[in-house]
Amino acid sequence: MLTLYYAPHTCALASHIALKDAGAQYELKRIDFKKSEQQSPAYLEVNPKGRVPTLATPGGLLTETPALLAYIAQSFPQARLAPLDDPFAFAKLQAFNSYLCSTVHVAHAHRMRGQRWADEQSSFADMQRKVPKTVGACFELIETKMLKGPWVMGDAYTVADPYLFTLAQWLESDSVDLTRIPRVMEHRARMAERPNVKNAIAEELAG
Amino acid sequence: MLTLYYAPHTCALASHIALKDAGAQYELKRIDFKKSEQQSPAYLEVNPKGRVPTLATPGGLLTETPALLAYIAQSFPQARLAPLDDPFAFAKLQAFNSYLCSTVHVAHAHRMRGQRWADEQSSFADMQRKVPKTVGACFELIETKMLKGPWVMGDAYTVADPYLFTLAQWLESDSVDLTRIPRVMEHRARMAERPNVKNAIAEELAG
Repeated sequence: MLTLYYAPHTCALASHIALKDAGAQYELKRIDFKKSEQQSPAYLEVNPKGRVPTLATPGGLLTETPALLAYIAQSFPQARLAPLDDPFAFAKLQAFNSYLCSTVHVAHAHRMRGQRWADEQSSFADMQRKVPKTVGACFELIETKMLKGPWVMGDAYTVADPYLFTLAQWLESDSVDLTRIPRVMEHRARMAERPNVKNAIAEELAG
Repeated sequence: MLTLYYAPHTCALASHIALKDAGAQYELKRIDFKKSEQQSPAYLEVNPKGRVPTLATPGGLLTETPALLAYIAQSFPQARLAPLDDPFAFAKLQAFNSYLCSTVHVAHAHRMRGQRWADEQSSFADMQRKVPKTVGACFELIETKMLKGPWVMGDAYTVADPYLFTLAQWLESDSVDLTRIPRVMEHRARMAERPNVKNAIAEELAG
């Protein structure tokens, strides 16, 4: 059995959708960010970084979305969620997920999590002002250079698709100019129609 | 043949060492950051993100260090640079590399690359002041919770080792308190003795 520690409206949604796409048996454990439960001693035993997601597996605990997505794809090969037999194609998928994790998500985090990297209110305000531009630039690069269509990697749906969809949930709150990224928006709409996506979101909000 | 686009003193060193560890045939192409060559039209054709490393492979171009390291490990399985047959162990390795990429490297980048996320000089100064603490906290987490020893993943040397070594090159310039991370420092010293590491660094400085 797998257990996904998550909070609604976080990047944990990507792994949650992937678990459904894989046909995995799993249970959800909600971490209450309003009570700062991610910093509780009990949760820090699970994930000393104090973040979500964490995936509890029969082998132990896993963190970091790109690693969870690769684990899910490799553990359920029959679901064909990654090009497992082609190191170059697998690396392209990993590179996309790594970009989302290390550049896109990080750009977004400067809107609400400035205290990770600075201390002054004036710095937080400065960072917040820049978020529409920085996150927008990331998504324009995805739009023009990375998203092959109809899915991220082309004809084959992969674990990159729920990850892109998840980060694209935050575009409006980051005040990104959506008119410049029509293909990303089309991908988001296509993903939103999938039953696994609808069900994962509904479960997170109900949980 | 593989070609690694790099600049000295960057995270490209991790992939460079891994190529040597893999016994790969490769050539180096140096990108001159002093001339902002990473933003030149020619290089942006290679990597539209304007960063290093990029690895040119027979299948096409690859970016993002965690993806390059996984590609090198999978393409040269006889070098045993990753636990390729165990999805959980492979995911643990990916999680470590993802943390280095998305959290440790990002924390470090706030010292010299503040313009990625803010515009005001006062914000850059604020970010710079916090770097010893934020990068230090990352390495203390590695010290106490992640680095198994003697190598990152335990008894087996993997591609995580050159990546940790590479980021640990920046500890002094980030003014991190080295006395709090003795195991990281020991790992760095052990890595620095390896001929592949010495040769990779020498080639980058000469190139």
